[in-house]
Amino acid sequence: MKINKDTVLCMSLAAKPSNFGTRFHNYLYEAYHLNYLYKAFAPVNLAQAIQGVRGLPVRGCAISMPYKEQVMALVDELDPSAQAIASVNTIVNTDGVLKAFNTDYMAIQQLIDEYEISPNTRFALKGSGGMAKAIAYAFKNRGFENGIIVAKNEKTGTALAQKLGYVWQATLEPNQADLIINATPVGMQGTAWQDELAWPTTVIDAAHMVFDVVALPENTPTICYAKSLNKTVITGAEVFARQALAQFHLYTGIYPEKEVFEAAAQFSRTATTQ
Amino acid sequence: MKINKDTVLCMSLAAKPSNFGTRFHNYLYEAYHLNYLYKAFAPVNLAQAIQGVRGLPVRGCAISMPYKEQVMALVDELDPSAQAIASVNTIVNTDGVLKAFNTDYMAIQQLIDEYEISPNTRFALKGSGGMAKAIAYAFKNRGFENGIIVAKNEKTGTALAQKLGYVWQATLEPNQADLIINATPVGMQGTAWQDELAWPTTVIDAAHMVFDVVALPENTPTICYAKSLNKTVITGAEVFARQALAQFHLYTGIYPEKEVFEAAAQFSRTATTQ
Repeated sequence: MKINKDTVLCMSLAAKPSNFGTRFHNYLYEAYHLNYLYKAFAPVNLAQAIQGVRGLPVRGCAISMPYKEQVMALVDELDPSAQAIASVNTIVNTDGVLKAFNTDYMAIQQLIDEYEISPNTRFALKGSGGMAKAIAYAFKNRGFENGIIVAKNEKTGTALAQKLGYVWQATLEPNQADLIINATPVGMQGTAWQDELAWPTTVIDAAHMVFDVVALPENTPTICYAKSLNKTVITGAEVFARQALAQFHLYTGIYPEKEVFEAAAQFSRTATTQ
Repeated sequence: MKINKDTVLCMSLAAKPSNFGTRFHNYLYEAYHLNYLYKAFAPVNLAQAIQGVRGLPVRGCAISMPYKEQVMALVDELDPSAQAIASVNTIVNTDGVLKAFNTDYMAIQQLIDEYEISPNTRFALKGSGGMAKAIAYAFKNRGFENGIIVAKNEKTGTALAQKLGYVWQATLEPNQADLIINATPVGMQGTAWQDELAWPTTVIDAAHMVFDVVALPENTPTICYAKSLNKTVITGAEVFARQALAQFHLYTGIYPEKEVFEAAAQFSRTATTQ
């Protein structure tokens, strides 16, 4: 990578940055000979970091936990994707105007369309955090009426469910849902729950489709188990890929070709703890 | 260059960035296997950019024209080198505390010592901008009493001269000075004066030592002419090297070995318009 005075900087802000985005974007910058550079930051102060995006300037900025809501007050415009769910994961700086997007929400909608999931499908969504919110709103937007929000936290769980006309449950019984979605860190590498299934086996056995938003590893225990039963699966890597692609397009104006993009996604998944 | 989430960012802020610093620092980071990255910015807003240094955070930040004085109000501490001349060219961020230095001033003092220039030497300094100020104060600090500030701008010229007990002149006559110093852009590549001598040939003929702070090219018309007369010369590349070395040490704690440093300085001088 060759850096000079004209190199355009894009970045990410997260309390605990991973190497996903850095590897993904820098791989594509190189593949397309773009004079761009991507770097992850763990900001000491979010407002000051966003001032830096304006002042330096920085072209694009991914926003991760725990800043996705707090950052809304610091931008100039909200794209409908961010406005719909009151959560931002991407900021684009165009001539000093900061516009916020939510490419996770965009990616989930895209996956619903790609997998041609019928709006009649009964889905259950585990979790009530930022990603769960993006998913619930995306399903609502696509016309799904039968949804169960499964969350240990009754307060955030019922709040999310009530806002969208879904129901809240603390746990899920088998056969309550055709599509089961995990939006918690269960199964994520490096957590206390990395070897656990997101759902009881009886619940997975009874489902038709299993969606796990955990991206690392791609094959979580839940995904592995579902694959062993020949269920249709959607992985967190697929979500990551689509949201990252949307970010890349917002920052550079380029849609990478499929094979280049897949190589970048593959590269971003390897050695991400480096 | 491999960038990951732990890569430390250093940067420069200048209205018209060159590639000097970017090439110099990144070369040394690589040579010493440091997980650092250097990038030049032309800030749209200085205060916001400095907020970014705090908030992201950024480890070190070079300050160039026209921000060297304005930035003083935005830092937490002034090193004596910056305080002495009320001009900053380097900021170091240590655990959130921004301390400002002037490594140009430090470099000039070092060169006076290295070349063992006697404080009795009569010197003439052409210019009254930021670099001229660093030079004038460095000579004053080293005990030089006989100085002429040569500046077309009478206001800034007399102000600088009077502050240090030197005299101002609009032009210089032969034999008024043993050491003649150019701190204007005359002879700088890419300017309207790139092919010009900083002094009349009669003035150079009569001097013993010629110092030109223009760093690109290293051999300015003035330096070439002085060399052809076997004068002792000090080049802008020597100033740049010493101030950049001081910056590198401030940012990383490392003093590069001589040959590595010289390779970096050489590398930074090539293809700097890329």
